[in-house]
Amino acid sequence: MIYHNVSEEQVIRMVTEAVKKVLDKEDTIPTGISVRHVHLERCHVEALFGPAYWLTVKKELSQPGQFAAEETVDLTGSKGTIKRVRVLGPERSASQVEVAFSDARILGINPPLRASGDVHGTPGIRLTGPYGSVDLEEGVIIADRHIHMSPKDAEHFGVSDGEKVSVKIDGIKSGILEGVTIRVSDKYKLDFHIDTDDGNAFMMSQGQKVRILKE
Amino acid sequence: MIYHNVSEEQVIRMVTEAVKKVLDKEDTIPTGISVRHVHLERCHVEALFGPAYWLTVKKELSQPGQFAAEETVDLTGSKGTIKRVRVLGPERSASQVEVAFSDARILGINPPLRASGDVHGTPGIRLTGPYGSVDLEEGVIIADRHIHMSPKDAEHFGVSDGEKVSVKIDGIKSGILEGVTIRVSDKYKLDFHIDTDDGNAFMMSQGQKVRILKE
Repeated sequence: MIYHNVSEEQVIRMVTEAVKKVLDKEDTIPTGISVRHVHLERCHVEALFGPAYWLTVKKELSQPGQFAAEETVDLTGSKGTIKRVRVLGPERSASQVEVAFSDARILGINPPLRASGDVHGTPGIRLTGPYGSVDLEEGVIIADRHIHMSPKDAEHFGVSDGEKVSVKIDGIKSGILEGVTIRVSDKYKLDFHIDTDDGNAFMMSQGQKVRILKE
Repeated sequence: MIYHNVSEEQVIRMVTEAVKKVLDKEDTIPTGISVRHVHLERCHVEALFGPAYWLTVKKELSQPGQFAAEETVDLTGSKGTIKRVRVLGPERSASQVEVAFSDARILGINPPLRASGDVHGTPGIRLTGPYGSVDLEEGVIIADRHIHMSPKDAEHFGVSDGEKVSVKIDGIKSGILEGVTIRVSDKYKLDFHIDTDDGNAFMMSQGQKVRILKE
């Protein structure tokens, strides 16, 4: 289109559209769908895999330093067992099992929705490895929906650590996930973390771009 | 609180709030979470369960005339088998398999999101019963999110047959499901139908009350 007479209003509208387009591109966040997994403390690594055993890196994860290990364990609850559940490294100070609601029903446990690391008073579970078994007294959670980001990202999105936001999911089965916690650290890479139940409901793919809606 | 001088404006506001409260109670819709299931045509009932075999009613479903049968079949795709999948009655003119996205991944098939009954060009699957097996040429779908309602309900909610709405889900893992199809018939009872992936993502229970948001 050729403009022979352009009003200030028209220019402002076109520039606004152009800037929006650029900003929109930078306003999306990649999704990481977390399958059920286990974090282990040192003594449980040895109890499950043998004395002086160390986890082996299979694949680096999106968050710096985190990795999927070659090792897996079986989870056993009162109603069932889920086999070959991936161990994530590095080791932590307390073992923790993160499952989706559908996993919890198979196992027959009723874990609360919690932030990773917050396991006080949560149900226990039996872990079985090739060397031995461990009965966790507590440690099973359904991980809350959260977004990892750097302080610079937080400034860009206009959010702060601990804030709850909604996230818009596009696609064939679209919708909005509410109550998503913002986690800010200079160690974090921008990533929207959900479990497989959320990912399946919206037929999402790893890395799918989503957008923050302020609650 | 005691009002000594009440303005017309204040009364209107209070009455509006009161009426809203009453109406809100009537504005919720119960949820029915559909587990993967199979609808069968006559000849497939006989192929799977034997000559002159008829389905047995196990439990009436929310929609009048529909029932869960005592009978189950195994589903087999290229990647895996899901055992003991419930057959729903009565018989239909064409067999159809409704699975969630997570089920489809286990089976190794890629069904489209469709309204029940709309199976043209969808993937096939092997059904196995106690008497024999049937290889469906087509018929596997991921059922779309939908709300059954009577014409009277439709008037009440201000929606019409085929319209797409959003639905607000409350709870610990709350959110909004978009693209929900309204289905109006005087044979229908008010019910919001979703699959287990949607139900699990929002940690929903059978019968949980939800609310329509206009898109």
